[in-house]
Amino acid sequence: MASIFSKIIAGEIPSYKVAEDDKHYAFLDINPLAKGHTLVVPKHEVDYAFDLSEEEYAALHAFARRVAIAQKKAIPCLRVGVAILGFDVPHTHIHLVPLQSEGQMNFTNERAKFTLEEMADIAASIAKEFK
Amino acid sequence: MASIFSKIIAGEIPSYKVAEDDKHYAFLDINPLAKGHTLVVPKHEVDYAFDLSEEEYAALHAFARRVAIAQKKAIPCLRVGVAILGFDVPHTHIHLVPLQSEGQMNFTNERAKFTLEEMADIAASIAKEFK
Repeated sequence: MASIFSKIIAGEIPSYKVAEDDKHYAFLDINPLAKGHTLVVPKHEVDYAFDLSEEEYAALHAFARRVAIAQKKAIPCLRVGVAILGFDVPHTHIHLVPLQSEGQMNFTNERAKFTLEEMADIAASIAKEFK
Repeated sequence: MASIFSKIIAGEIPSYKVAEDDKHYAFLDINPLAKGHTLVVPKHEVDYAFDLSEEEYAALHAFARRVAIAQKKAIPCLRVGVAILGFDVPHTHIHLVPLQSEGQMNFTNERAKFTLEEMADIAASIAKEFK
């Protein structure tokens, strides 16, 4: 069965898209730890990040790097933090979180809330900076 | 002034070394979130991960991938988690944490304690699996 992320990539489930290329898709986390929290996924549906080939793993991070650089320009933050956990959705994904402090990168924190319009604006502001 | 990680790489400060190549160094975090928690650093001292060049950033993750595969073989865990935060030491580093649960990847958690001998054994067990 296709993962929820594969359904998002296929457009069967809507998402706030930030960036895409032939092998990767980036979209806003709907339960963000901070404004602009983005998930970066390979279109190749693999559960565990380190089961990606060396080339796929490197390409995923290279794509995520471009997203993170765009986030830093679009969202006020000190740094963009990176995390791969993988206990929720069995389709590997990189969390990219614009951070003001280390404590924001805590997945047990209460999540930020934004309206649908705000989410769309946040996604568009990052997409605009994506090179 | 050289960062504490540059002093560790230079051998001026001791560390539990896990792996090394000409551009990267991996060693145990002395305040581990879990058994086998390892830090992977580029020898090129750069504060913010996304200020590394595209090539340096990809190479750092490719090296970290090899360490993570070794960790999974050496340390009982479900997954190896990945995090880059960067609010502590101004020399970018990837945390690789062997995880039994998502909650272990929480930098506010109490840290695990191991004796010096245990730390040396843990580092050696990962180093042995490093390819």
